Amino acid sequence: MSQGPSLGIDIGGTKTHGVLLDASGRVLADQVRPTRKGADGVLSTARAVADDCLREAAVDRSRLAGVGVGVPGQVDHLTGVVRTAVNLGIDHLELGALLSADLGVDVRVDNDVKAAARGAAQALDVQGADLTYVNIGTGVAAATLVAGRVVRGEGNLAGEIGHVPVVPDGERCACGQRGCLEALVGGGRIAARLALIDPPLALPTLVAQATRGRLEAIAELDRIAGGIATAVQLVVLTQGSARVVLGGGVIHATPGLVDHVRRMLELRAAESDFLASLHLPGRVVVLPSGYPVAAIGAALVGRAGSGAARPAPVG
Amino acid sequence: MSQGPSLGIDIGGTKTHGVLLDASGRVLADQVRPTRKGADGVLSTARAVADDCLREAAVDRSRLAGVGVGVPGQVDHLTGVVRTAVNLGIDHLELGALLSADLGVDVRVDNDVKAAARGAAQALDVQGADLTYVNIGTGVAAATLVAGRVVRGEGNLAGEIGHVPVVPDGERCACGQRGCLEALVGGGRIAARLALIDPPLALPTLVAQATRGRLEAIAELDRIAGGIATAVQLVVLTQGSARVVLGGGVIHATPGLVDHVRRMLELRAAESDFLASLHLPGRVVVLPSGYPVAAIGAALVGRAGSGAARPAPVG
Repeated sequence: MSQGPSLGIDIGGTKTHGVLLDASGRVLADQVRPTRKGADGVLSTARAVADDCLREAAVDRSRLAGVGVGVPGQVDHLTGVVRTAVNLGIDHLELGALLSADLGVDVRVDNDVKAAARGAAQALDVQGADLTYVNIGTGVAAATLVAGRVVRGEGNLAGEIGHVPVVPDGERCACGQRGCLEALVGGGRIAARLALIDPPLALPTLVAQATRGRLEAIAELDRIAGGIATAVQLVVLTQGSARVVLGGGVIHATPGLVDHVRRMLELRAAESDFLASLHLPGRVVVLPSGYPVAAIGAALVGRAGSGAARPAPVG
Repeated sequence: MSQGPSLGIDIGGTKTHGVLLDASGRVLADQVRPTRKGADGVLSTARAVADDCLREAAVDRSRLAGVGVGVPGQVDHLTGVVRTAVNLGIDHLELGALLSADLGVDVRVDNDVKAAARGAAQALDVQGADLTYVNIGTGVAAATLVAGRVVRGEGNLAGEIGHVPVVPDGERCACGQRGCLEALVGGGRIAARLALIDPPLALPTLVAQATRGRLEAIAELDRIAGGIATAVQLVVLTQGSARVVLGGGVIHATPGLVDHVRRMLELRAAESDFLASLHLPGRVVVLPSGYPVAAIGAALVGRAGSGAARPAPVG
């Protein structure tokens, strides 16, 4: 099979990450640029990252087997239309059609977390299995694969777990509700809380400070790890996911955090035989922080479904 | 097609309900008996209800096209083995094999809520669609159909939403955790709370008492309706369900409750454009309280998948 390489572009609120995968799944190029906001900014950034990748690998556009884009917000994966991507300053953008016209190649668009779930399944070499990817970043969302297929729900809504209220009358969330999971563990809200502490705390040293016994660090670590443990419970109990892959900025910025999440799950299991029977800590998986899971997932989105090659597993 | 009738048996903690459906989906028999506990009790009750149904419709066992059983607890739908059905006093029971040997007909077994989801899809004539059935009874659990197929997860676990913690350090749940959804809205815990109030409150008059301004009734109604509203959010945000069918003892014992759930969802949507965009109150559906949704679903479980006829839609 002489299938050409496929390009994956992960458009985030801060940076846009591109990878070029060859037919056997090897990464031929890996490029990052800061994301320019607004419809024109997002489009021009995506185009520039695409060109960077093609240049790095000395591949001509005409050889591309497919292009996939992962983007936050409400994405219609069938039409490639993005709506209400607040972090990107986008209200409505025909991203798929405009980028297709630009690149002269068919472009498929999906929600970034759903793309990352595909990337994670390939990284772990469990494509075809049940898996949930949980993104703990500025936003908090999940995507579940059942037998390798993305659970979408009506309007591709499935996975918006960040806006399930888990603390009655809790902190106000950006969505307007109180006590959402995202208000508890979303990166923006965590940063705001840490900045209020004097002297301020930061995620990279949070676990170290907690270990040294600093009370504010212990309290915040318990709050974050407890919220993420609840997210793990929520997706396993709702979807029955065999594996829960944790990713996103908060996870990777906080060394030792996932160990605390597992410990929190063990503490809860010690009080509940039912919970203990689920072996939740063993379901939690983390990918290496440098692994471009969402961009690789986007490349898989771009590739036609059947007969497609896959990248090599990680680890 | 001269397919015979199929028998569905819904085994609950209190009663066991059987229906016999003809090939066109008409209910030929509808029988109920109190459930005897323990392995022998459950088996003999199921057998007796099966015989009651066959006798009512004057149908011979040999004519049955299939038998399905819905049962609470951890059910392996592939082997028909039931484990840890606390309300039935069952630790481990090869229900499918034993009942098959008894009746001389192949018996399929599934979790009762998953069976009810199938019954609900047929009742609403939306088989093949996305739907979540949420049971608010002694236990709190859900089952989701995606394109008409049951979401099972590993070990048929999917749907155990009753044990997602939604109130930090909340009431102790029967599962051992604190603040589970089931501790908030499960029938047993509600009854225990209502009995503590002096003079005691009961579900059938809860809404009427709240409307008359009795403060304890208002507080408890808000607590129950708020918990169920959270359950609706949880399943829609996680699974993207287009329809959420509410059923179970608490729903049917409490006239007016679902109106309060819808009002609670509207109040929350008034604070959140995101939530408002999901139109949650319009997704909530209730079946008539007398409709034997789980027993009909069990009959559908028993029937071979393809080419099977379906019962007439409700309402």
